[in-house]
Amino acid sequence: MYAPNSVLLTDLYQLTMLQGYFRQGMEDTAVFEFMVRELPPGRNFLLAAGLEQAVEYLQGLHFTPTELEWMEHSGHFDSDFLTWLEDLRFTGDVHAMAEGTPFFADEPILRVTAPLPQAQLVESRLINILHLQTLVASKAARCVLAAPDKRLVDFGMRRAHGAEAGLYAARASYLAGFAGSATVLAEQCFGVPSSGTMAHSFVEAHDVEEEAFAAFAHACPQNVVLLIDTYDTEAGAEKVVALAPRLQEQGITVKAVRLDSGELAAHARRVRAILDRGGLEATTIFSSGSLDEHRLARLQAEDAPIDGFGIGTRLDTSADAPYLDCAYKLQEYAGEARRKRSEGKSTWPGRKQVHRHYDDRGIPDHDILTVEGDAPSGKALIRPIMAGGRLLEPLPDLETIRRRVADELAALPAPLRGLETASPAYAVRIAPALRQLASEVDRRIARRNG
Amino acid sequence: MYAPNSVLLTDLYQLTMLQGYFRQGMEDTAVFEFMVRELPPGRNFLLAAGLEQAVEYLQGLHFTPTELEWMEHSGHFDSDFLTWLEDLRFTGDVHAMAEGTPFFADEPILRVTAPLPQAQLVESRLINILHLQTLVASKAARCVLAAPDKRLVDFGMRRAHGAEAGLYAARASYLAGFAGSATVLAEQCFGVPSSGTMAHSFVEAHDVEEEAFAAFAHACPQNVVLLIDTYDTEAGAEKVVALAPRLQEQGITVKAVRLDSGELAAHARRVRAILDRGGLEATTIFSSGSLDEHRLARLQAEDAPIDGFGIGTRLDTSADAPYLDCAYKLQEYAGEARRKRSEGKSTWPGRKQVHRHYDDRGIPDHDILTVEGDAPSGKALIRPIMAGGRLLEPLPDLETIRRRVADELAALPAPLRGLETASPAYAVRIAPALRQLASEVDRRIARRNG
Repeated sequence: MYAPNSVLLTDLYQLTMLQGYFRQGMEDTAVFEFMVRELPPGRNFLLAAGLEQAVEYLQGLHFTPTELEWMEHSGHFDSDFLTWLEDLRFTGDVHAMAEGTPFFADEPILRVTAPLPQAQLVESRLINILHLQTLVASKAARCVLAAPDKRLVDFGMRRAHGAEAGLYAARASYLAGFAGSATVLAEQCFGVPSSGTMAHSFVEAHDVEEEAFAAFAHACPQNVVLLIDTYDTEAGAEKVVALAPRLQEQGITVKAVRLDSGELAAHARRVRAILDRGGLEATTIFSSGSLDEHRLARLQAEDAPIDGFGIGTRLDTSADAPYLDCAYKLQEYAGEARRKRSEGKSTWPGRKQVHRHYDDRGIPDHDILTVEGDAPSGKALIRPIMAGGRLLEPLPDLETIRRRVADELAALPAPLRGLETASPAYAVRIAPALRQLASEVDRRIARRNG
Repeated sequence: MYAPNSVLLTDLYQLTMLQGYFRQGMEDTAVFEFMVRELPPGRNFLLAAGLEQAVEYLQGLHFTPTELEWMEHSGHFDSDFLTWLEDLRFTGDVHAMAEGTPFFADEPILRVTAPLPQAQLVESRLINILHLQTLVASKAARCVLAAPDKRLVDFGMRRAHGAEAGLYAARASYLAGFAGSATVLAEQCFGVPSSGTMAHSFVEAHDVEEEAFAAFAHACPQNVVLLIDTYDTEAGAEKVVALAPRLQEQGITVKAVRLDSGELAAHARRVRAILDRGGLEATTIFSSGSLDEHRLARLQAEDAPIDGFGIGTRLDTSADAPYLDCAYKLQEYAGEARRKRSEGKSTWPGRKQVHRHYDDRGIPDHDILTVEGDAPSGKALIRPIMAGGRLLEPLPDLETIRRRVADELAALPAPLRGLETASPAYAVRIAPALRQLASEVDRRIARRNG
């Protein structure tokens, strides 16, 4: 089995470029920033996430003897370079937006300032870490905004793209305001409350549905949530009504029923009526099955009597926007700002800061993207996190981040909180100082490479 | 850091259901099958992948003392159940389609036959493993079919959904016919040839582009691929032409140039002309940037002089179809076939076999989905893999699978090899024996649960 934070989980060119830097002694300070160049269609903001895992990766960065041995046998590398790699650790600085901060196109959310080889080497995995959690947290925030009064649970691990996607999706969606996740490992690793019901197979393995319900209730008396759509949803609800009084005599309460198929709003209304008629007014209805923010919004609009939702595949894969147009770009080397000019892909050079300006009610009005140190007005969102390879102070815990996200989402301008594209989009203004730096860089590039 | 194959990487309900089965002593043999219910829009077939990792997971299945301790503290479970879990291992049988086999909707690609608790517990992670690689291998096969004469390399790790997605995407795309991957760890873990060029940051970190080219060539003389679009693509090509003779004098050959932005076909034509005029006829052109099977097909149609492609984000995230409608369903328990009847989600019950029928030229004509043991005509695709928890024989290595895929893809009916939806779709016929079994199951369900 592989180690998820293996230094070899990188692109080959990082290692070959490192060999180049090593040969030339290019170890001056480099500044790289991670940003999203463009928001996916329909998205009005993104939520920064994954900083904790990024820091963990940087803190653990090293080549193991086994990895170095393998690299030697691979034939791609010289032995003096491999010897030099033995001592490579991350000794640089990190600045970043706090996890859970809403951000917009072109705004860096993480900056690495380190000797060039270190800052270069970590590119692929840093993108990989920040991209995934930002992607899922941003999708989850939309679900939370679509159904703010409902209990939302991440059900997506099985169709997430691999182990880490399932695990980190649970963290990212919890951070964004979900109540928990079905993924047990996320509770062990991150304290994300795990939550679960029962599967169709449990019902099918029993000869009779009522027997399955009773068996499950006795096996997990503190959390009886019965899945009632295996054969016929309304008939399943009637069986719950018949069973509940007998369970109640034994001190067991049917907490909820789950619907997983068919027209959820219609089924929920009929099931609600059956439960209420049977005296189970306190038994809630939980629903799942191909849900996303748009289906949540429709169910909310229809006033479906559903109390909670399990959101799975479309959340964990961010199905409508399965990737972000993100990059980790060199902004400065050896004291000089840098940028590439490739068609359609040019970036703003230099060490940057994002200043967020609020209106009288504390609602974000616009951001200003500028060079660090320029015109410090508004709230500066990029803060120091690591210095000299060490964390400056402990990162906030997940509960703290989650509370901050709730505040941040509540404070967003109303058009940004909707599911449709806000028009106009939130304003990110480029400061004159940044435009001037870009011109200077371009003139220098033209002079040297003209 | 987490362990990717931790038994806690599962849904909570698997563990609570297990507690239910344990309480009731339900340890009879269960049969579960993994299948895709429907192909994504535009896909004419899928490629089975991930069996090796699924087997590895089953072979290693156990609860560690730390995990059991954590479960005890979580408060979800009883102590006699936890004691019972200490000895839980996978002791069942596995049948499966060979990795790299094209398959279609409703066809199982993996069957687990084991005591119910074991077969149930592994559901979430087995789906997670098989889904990801099948998803990416199927997408990669389309790229290979779109550009069969070109060298395709997986460049997607950075925007894959986490560590495992990046690693397994490299394996899955290589299996499907890619030449290799940029992901170094995939070479260490699976022998997928790693491949790489240089990044824009390498060029930008040097003051002058020519210097960057020369430095890279000297650092990696055996694999000189120069990225020429950082500032101006055609100017970059001219610099390569100017530099190449000097490098050649030192015994260094410029193997290729890479384009990563703009109109690739137009740039490639101009760059090809510049290189040819400069005597670099043997220097190939490699291209990357937002590629997928459709862009490959267009570039092929335009006859763009590009020799190889790096396919990244859209491959690793299977961007046009980021998930499959797949499931792992109970088909039999205690000798009786089972199925759920949930609306729109009912499945074919029982242990099943897929028989593939070929025409005179060896081209697949149709499949028959039936119950195991029925009318064994055609080629039976589901074969025994594990018995009693042990692998029956070593699984084929990746090179063998890759060769088989090449043959399988070449033999597919022409309409299936196209990128557009084949009409009619490949025929999967349901055998009378399977229809009869489904009716019997339904009558039994109705009798018991009516």
